Amino acid sequence: MQKPVHVVVPFKHRGAKSRLSSVLLQEERRLLAAAMLKDVLSAVQGLGPVTVLSQPGFELTEAKFGNDVEVLESELELNGALNSLIEGEARRGWPLDILIVMADLALLTEKDLAGIINCEGDVVLCPGRGGGTNVILIRDPRFRTCYRGLSFPKHLSLAEELGLRAEVIESFRAGCDIDLPEDLAELLLHGRGEARALLEALGLRPLENGRSGTERKTTDNIINIQPKI
Amino acid sequence: MQKPVHVVVPFKHRGAKSRLSSVLLQEERRLLAAAMLKDVLSAVQGLGPVTVLSQPGFELTEAKFGNDVEVLESELELNGALNSLIEGEARRGWPLDILIVMADLALLTEKDLAGIINCEGDVVLCPGRGGGTNVILIRDPRFRTCYRGLSFPKHLSLAEELGLRAEVIESFRAGCDIDLPEDLAELLLHGRGEARALLEALGLRPLENGRSGTERKTTDNIINIQPKI
Repeated sequence: MQKPVHVVVPFKHRGAKSRLSSVLLQEERRLLAAAMLKDVLSAVQGLGPVTVLSQPGFELTEAKFGNDVEVLESELELNGALNSLIEGEARRGWPLDILIVMADLALLTEKDLAGIINCEGDVVLCPGRGGGTNVILIRDPRFRTCYRGLSFPKHLSLAEELGLRAEVIESFRAGCDIDLPEDLAELLLHGRGEARALLEALGLRPLENGRSGTERKTTDNIINIQPKI
Repeated sequence: MQKPVHVVVPFKHRGAKSRLSSVLLQEERRLLAAAMLKDVLSAVQGLGPVTVLSQPGFELTEAKFGNDVEVLESELELNGALNSLIEGEARRGWPLDILIVMADLALLTEKDLAGIINCEGDVVLCPGRGGGTNVILIRDPRFRTCYRGLSFPKHLSLAEELGLRAEVIESFRAGCDIDLPEDLAELLLHGRGEARALLEALGLRPLENGRSGTERKTTDNIINIQPKI
């Protein structure tokens, strides 16, 4: 039985997943973001209390949350909101370690999370593609998040500056955040939850030439959707 | 002490890494391919005999191979060459299981390989990005490779057709093949070997906006290099 953690899932509901706009319509992107959040909440189930950290006006009728999930709305940007929460927990005497899990980790499994939680270290970091940080386990109240851009090396540097022991868990599934059109191919190939089912229902499938993206089947024809960066 | 395997590393020396041509000159791409091969050969060291499978005219003065490495030149395309080798080993009574490792897995570590070799199953598959297959451990002589395109689901289907037990090992490092400009950012961020050192010597570094690629520092200025797909 592992020690419970306080799971924090930042979720952007305004203009969510805008980098998928070449592939999905606005309403489809909203549904995908909701489906991925549900998949993530399902993966973190049982780890401890869960806070979905969002902006004011958060409403997500598709996502039915369990009893152990609270929604916290904040006007602050991502790091401001997260660090304010971390500081609040530090003032309360740090009742539980904090596990930050991005809401678009649609391939994440309970096993990946167990690997992170069972890892020693004052901070455990899980890198995403392109230098991002997809999961952070914080065991020391002095740590702060520095998301945006190349956050993974920034988080490592901060831990070093604070004299904290940082451990890194590299994971295929936890490392795959769904941001760009080519990521949808990963979701279609390796997903197991609602987000994959949604993409299939929308008629998306991975292109034969692997990393080029997805194609979409309509009743009349097949439209190739190439990544637009 | 684990059972030795016959490691096979397919290496394309003609027009290697052409999808990096927007970022690296031809000679730089050749050097990178050689550095990645060296990193891969270093990671597989000690697992058993190694065959580098290449095309006629293979010469790679940069890569100094150890005693346990033989170079096999074949006129056949990738699957033809690999399956011919598999059939040959089957005729010889299958002296060792075959571990196919792609030559561009520049983040691969001994630990990743140990995880694959210690996994049960008649076939162990390690997915790459976009539906590729980066490592295959073959324990049954009936298995054949079907590289190109979405090879990972094809390999899974073939195993099922043959009634073989296929196991999947998902790994951040073994899952990262270096094909596209944005992959160079992964290599710069997470690499530990010669390929990373080469990129740094060439003045490349990851762009601050994460997944957009790399930038190149020259003596006079910084040139942004965006992925071109």
